[in-house]
Amino acid sequence: MKDAAQIEPDLALAERLFDALREASLDPPGVTRDAYGPGEERAHALCLEAAEGAGLAVSRDFAGNSYATLAESDSGERTLIIGSHLDSVPHGGNYDGAAGVVAGLAALAGLVRADRRPRGDVTVMMTRAEESVWFPVSFAGARAALGCLPVEALAAKRSDTGDTLAQHMRALGFEPEAIAAGQRHLDPARIAGFIEAHIEQGPELIEVGRAVAVVPAISGGDRFRKARITGVYAHVGGAPKRVRRDAVAALGHIIVGINAVWDRLDAEGHRIMATFGVVGVDPAMASWSRVPGEARFTLDIRGVDLPALARMRVALDDIVAEAESKYGVTVSLGPDTGPRPAFLDRDLLQRLRDCASARFIPFHEMPSGGRHDALAFHEAGVPTAMLFIRNQHGSHTPDEAMDLADFAEAARILATLAATH
Amino acid sequence: MKDAAQIEPDLALAERLFDALREASLDPPGVTRDAYGPGEERAHALCLEAAEGAGLAVSRDFAGNSYATLAESDSGERTLIIGSHLDSVPHGGNYDGAAGVVAGLAALAGLVRADRRPRGDVTVMMTRAEESVWFPVSFAGARAALGCLPVEALAAKRSDTGDTLAQHMRALGFEPEAIAAGQRHLDPARIAGFIEAHIEQGPELIEVGRAVAVVPAISGGDRFRKARITGVYAHVGGAPKRVRRDAVAALGHIIVGINAVWDRLDAEGHRIMATFGVVGVDPAMASWSRVPGEARFTLDIRGVDLPALARMRVALDDIVAEAESKYGVTVSLGPDTGPRPAFLDRDLLQRLRDCASARFIPFHEMPSGGRHDALAFHEAGVPTAMLFIRNQHGSHTPDEAMDLADFAEAARILATLAATH
Repeated sequence: MKDAAQIEPDLALAERLFDALREASLDPPGVTRDAYGPGEERAHALCLEAAEGAGLAVSRDFAGNSYATLAESDSGERTLIIGSHLDSVPHGGNYDGAAGVVAGLAALAGLVRADRRPRGDVTVMMTRAEESVWFPVSFAGARAALGCLPVEALAAKRSDTGDTLAQHMRALGFEPEAIAAGQRHLDPARIAGFIEAHIEQGPELIEVGRAVAVVPAISGGDRFRKARITGVYAHVGGAPKRVRRDAVAALGHIIVGINAVWDRLDAEGHRIMATFGVVGVDPAMASWSRVPGEARFTLDIRGVDLPALARMRVALDDIVAEAESKYGVTVSLGPDTGPRPAFLDRDLLQRLRDCASARFIPFHEMPSGGRHDALAFHEAGVPTAMLFIRNQHGSHTPDEAMDLADFAEAARILATLAATH
Repeated sequence: MKDAAQIEPDLALAERLFDALREASLDPPGVTRDAYGPGEERAHALCLEAAEGAGLAVSRDFAGNSYATLAESDSGERTLIIGSHLDSVPHGGNYDGAAGVVAGLAALAGLVRADRRPRGDVTVMMTRAEESVWFPVSFAGARAALGCLPVEALAAKRSDTGDTLAQHMRALGFEPEAIAAGQRHLDPARIAGFIEAHIEQGPELIEVGRAVAVVPAISGGDRFRKARITGVYAHVGGAPKRVRRDAVAALGHIIVGINAVWDRLDAEGHRIMATFGVVGVDPAMASWSRVPGEARFTLDIRGVDLPALARMRVALDDIVAEAESKYGVTVSLGPDTGPRPAFLDRDLLQRLRDCASARFIPFHEMPSGGRHDALAFHEAGVPTAMLFIRNQHGSHTPDEAMDLADFAEAARILATLAATH
C-alpha cells in the first residue's frame, strides 16, 4: 500500500480533458451532451482518444459504452471497474458524470506513467444515457452492458427528437439487436467491484469542509408520480367554504403537513428529503374563477434512514386522511414507484477509506440522495461503492462548478485503489 | 299595489319556453348556448317568438341583444328593464341566465293577460355573451347596449372558434361598427331601473329554506391572476431542507395560511370567499425529481364585507412574508384586478321587498358572490337590483336544477313590480 499511496494521477491530462469536453459540448449557458446523440458521442471520442494516448487499451460494447483498460493478461483476477457517464442534462455542467470518468482515466494514466501494473485488469467504463431527461429509462447504457435493460426500453423515445432508443443506437452504429437478444457485455461474476466517483450535487461537503466523501448508501423511499386529488368544481362566487370540495386547498394541506413532519424529523437529526416537484390543475377545467375540482401532484420521499422513511410514510397516510376529511375530497396517491435504499458493499467501501487514509486525505461519509449508474451495478449483484467530490452550486445547472484540487483527491484515492487491485 | 299583487305570471308559457330552450340547445351532458353562436341565437329566436305570441313588442339592437316590451306610448316615464343573458357555458344548465329572461317574459305575459298596463314602458332585455368562457370580455352584450364596451373588445377572440367578437357579430347580421363608432342603444338616464333575476348558483337558499332572495350587493375583492413564487431549482437528492428554496412548499404555506384566516373569519360570521383556482409549475422546468424553483397561482378573494376583505388582504401580506422568509423564495402577487364590491340601489331593492311582502312571499337576503349583467348597469349609473332563485347542484354544470315553484315566486315578484311601474 505504501508505494501505491505515492502514485500521482495524471492531473494535467484531467485538466486538458475537462477543457476539451467543455469546448466540444458548449451550448450556452452550460454544456449539452445529449444521450446517444452528437454531444455524448463527441465526449466518448475525446475520452477514448485521451485513454489511448495514455497507453490504455480501448473498446466499445454493443450499446456504445466505452472502456479504457489497464490489462494484466491472463491474471485470472476479476476486473475492477471505475466508471460514470458522459451524457449531461441540456445546458448542464461539465462535471456531472464526466468527473468520474476523467478521475478514472487520470488514475490509470498515473499508473501507466509510474509503470505500475495491478494484478488484475482495471477498466474505466464510460456509460451512456444516465440522465433520465433524454430517455424515460434509468441507466440505459450501464444496464444494457449488464444485460439488465428490459427489451421494451429500446422503444423509449428521446424527449427532444422523438426517435426511439434503438433508432438512436443504430444511428451511431451500435447494436440494439444484441439487447433485444438478451446479450450482455459484462458478467457480474467477473467484476471485482464497481466504483463511481461523482460530484456531490449538494452542499454538504462544502458545509463540512471536506473535498471528498465515501458514499455507503444510495437513497430510496417513496415516489408518487401520479397522485391526484378529486374534489368538485364549483362557481367561485356561489360556493361558501362549508360546501366546497376544493382540491387545491387539500393540496396545500398535504404540502404543509409533509413539510411539518420533515421539519420534526430534521430537527431530530434524521436525514431524509420530501419534494413535491410538480403540482397542477387540469388546464382545460381550472380557472381563476372556479373552485378547483381536481389537483395533481408528485411526491418524492427519499433517504437511507429506514425508520425515518417509515415514519414519513405513516404520517403521509394520516395527512391524506386529514385532507380528505377537512376538504371533502378523495386523494389517490397512485402507484408507489420508489426504490428501496441501496446499502453499498462494505468491503469495497472499507478499501476506499483505507486508500484515503493511506494518502492522508480526510474524507466525509454521506449517503447519496440521487441515483447513479452505481445502482445498476449494485442491483446486478456487483460489489459497488461511490466517492463524492465537493462541488459548488449544485448540479444540472450551468453554474455547476468543481475545484480541481478537490477532484485530484478523488483521483488519488482511485489511483491507490487501482494500484492495489 | 293590492291588485298588482294578484297578477299571476304566465307559468305555462315559462314551462313551454324552458322546454323549448333545452331542446334547442341540448348538447349532452347539459346544454350549450354559445355566445354569438348558433346556440345563443336559437335561444333568442325562441324567446322573441314567445314574447310576440304573448303580445309584446319585440326588437333587437346593433349588438344582437333582444327586447320584448310592454309599452305605454308617450308616457314620459323612464323604462323599467328586467333582464338577463341567454348564453350558457359549454355543457351547462338550462336555467343560468335563461331563468331571468323567462321570469320577465312570464311576468309581462301575465300583465298582458290581465290587461294591466303600467304607467311606463317595461322591457325584458335578453343580453348576449355574459359567460366569460367564450370571449375574455365581461358582459359584452349589456355593455355594448350601454355604450360601455371598449372598442378593443371587438378584437377579442372566441375561445373555441378563434374568430373575433366583431366577426361573430357580423356573421349574425349585427353591427359591430356601431360599437366601434361609440354608439349606445340604451341611455342610462332613460332607464328607471334594471332588475336581474338569476339562479343563486350556490346552496344558501336551500340551507335557509327560501325560494328567493333579494340581493343587495355584488361581491368584489382582490383578484390575483398572475401570482408567482420564485425559488431555486435543485437536484432533489442533493438539496437538504436547509438549503432549499422550494417554490411549491411556499405555495402550500400560502394556501394553508389563507384558508386558516378564512376559517377564522367564517367562524366569526364574516361571509367572504378565497379561492386558489389555478396552481402550477413550469412544465418545461419542473419534474418529480427536481426541487421546484418556480410556482404560479391565482387567488380570488371576494365578498361584500369590507372589513373582512381588508383583514384578509392584510393577512395575505403577512402570509406571503412568512412564506418568503421560511422558504427563501420571492413572491410576486402581480396586479390586483379585483373589482370593488357593488352595493345595489336601495330604493329598487326596497320595491322588490315590498312586492314580495305584498304577495306574502318569504324571502332571504344575500349578496351575490358571482358577477352578472346587473353589474354593467350598476356601473353605468342605472338603479339596479337582483333577485336570486333557489337552485340545486350549483351552476355551470349539467346537473344544475331549479324547481319551477321557486321560479314562479320570482316571476310573481317581477309581475307585481312591473304592474306598479
